[in-house]
Amino acid sequence: MRLCPYAQRTRIMLAHKKIPYETVNINLKEKPEWFLEKTPLGMVPVLEHDGKIVYESAICNEYLEDIHKQNGVTPTDPYRRARDKMLLEMNSKFTTAYYKALQGLKGEDANSLIEAVHASLVPLEKAIGERGNFYGGDKPSMLDFLLYPHYERIEGIRTGFHADFMPMDKLPKLNAWVSRMQTVPAVKETMFDAHTHIDFYKSYGSGKTDYDIGLQ
Amino acid sequence: MRLCPYAQRTRIMLAHKKIPYETVNINLKEKPEWFLEKTPLGMVPVLEHDGKIVYESAICNEYLEDIHKQNGVTPTDPYRRARDKMLLEMNSKFTTAYYKALQGLKGEDANSLIEAVHASLVPLEKAIGERGNFYGGDKPSMLDFLLYPHYERIEGIRTGFHADFMPMDKLPKLNAWVSRMQTVPAVKETMFDAHTHIDFYKSYGSGKTDYDIGLQ
Repeated sequence: MRLCPYAQRTRIMLAHKKIPYETVNINLKEKPEWFLEKTPLGMVPVLEHDGKIVYESAICNEYLEDIHKQNGVTPTDPYRRARDKMLLEMNSKFTTAYYKALQGLKGEDANSLIEAVHASLVPLEKAIGERGNFYGGDKPSMLDFLLYPHYERIEGIRTGFHADFMPMDKLPKLNAWVSRMQTVPAVKETMFDAHTHIDFYKSYGSGKTDYDIGLQ
Repeated sequence: MRLCPYAQRTRIMLAHKKIPYETVNINLKEKPEWFLEKTPLGMVPVLEHDGKIVYESAICNEYLEDIHKQNGVTPTDPYRRARDKMLLEMNSKFTTAYYKALQGLKGEDANSLIEAVHASLVPLEKAIGERGNFYGGDKPSMLDFLLYPHYERIEGIRTGFHADFMPMDKLPKLNAWVSRMQTVPAVKETMFDAHTHIDFYKSYGSGKTDYDIGLQ
């Protein structure tokens, strides 16, 4: 699946560290047998190298950081590392609210679901306000890479579905951070435009997800 | 809350590293204001040291490992570290099935919920079979400490509710591992017997949870 935000987390990391890799895209509705033999969770991304298998995006990224020391993005201070993991945990409240709202866009509860997304973003807005240009301060860190992919999709939801998950007046710093992230080389290499995301989410909403969108 | 398995993960780590600490037990049904100001998730454990706050059990344990180097329990090999994190992720499927079964013990679906627990444990049984006495091999590692607390409670569920979440004939190696863990000094220091767990789960099932059970 080319447009999976979790796989994108790891594609950004690979691009940032300039590690050559081959991509195999998976149709997540009809998973091939060989894929399920490699990963019991049946989700992407999955890394395979020298017969070693690693899955779960945050674990994949930590593993890449551990085995390829160049262009490190993990904070050296233990407390900052812990804080970053806590923020990632807070962000999982946002991703939960995000998918719930996306699924409920046509329902009666759409407005309250979208407001729940806004509420889930308050701690992230506060943190970026305190930290500067990136969650890593002057430059992007592991946390920036893990957070970014879902936020890339917000512009597509805004223009394609007329639902604003991240209003400029409520969350100005997060909006500025997304724009700034889109100037980072590793992000530029892996990102898709709003139209491609809209096409994917429309196919997702139709019940017949087209997992080939985004493939050349 | 004295009997929280997530808090126990961190109590084991503190005991293993012989770090002196003071415990403040929280009534999780009526959380004090000062507690919610320290942690937005409102869950235990929460560490506080020199004005620094760390929450989420796995993050707390990593932080303790980072700042107190004595008696290290994290594997040095990056792939083993990644594998351990993947196993912890698999274990979260077990804890989900565990709480679901616990809540459904009186319902019609009890048997199928308990069977779902058994199924969720198969990868853990396989892994301990491959690794030896502990998930860390010859001696307990971080993963052993993170996994252990929920398994301690299975004997109480077995004798107190006549529901076997971990049958000896299906999962012999996991059963042996639990017994072996109970000989580890840091575990012995923090564990409770089956009767105390039964008392707690009975109060939990009554709708009026007694968070003081286990306190002297």
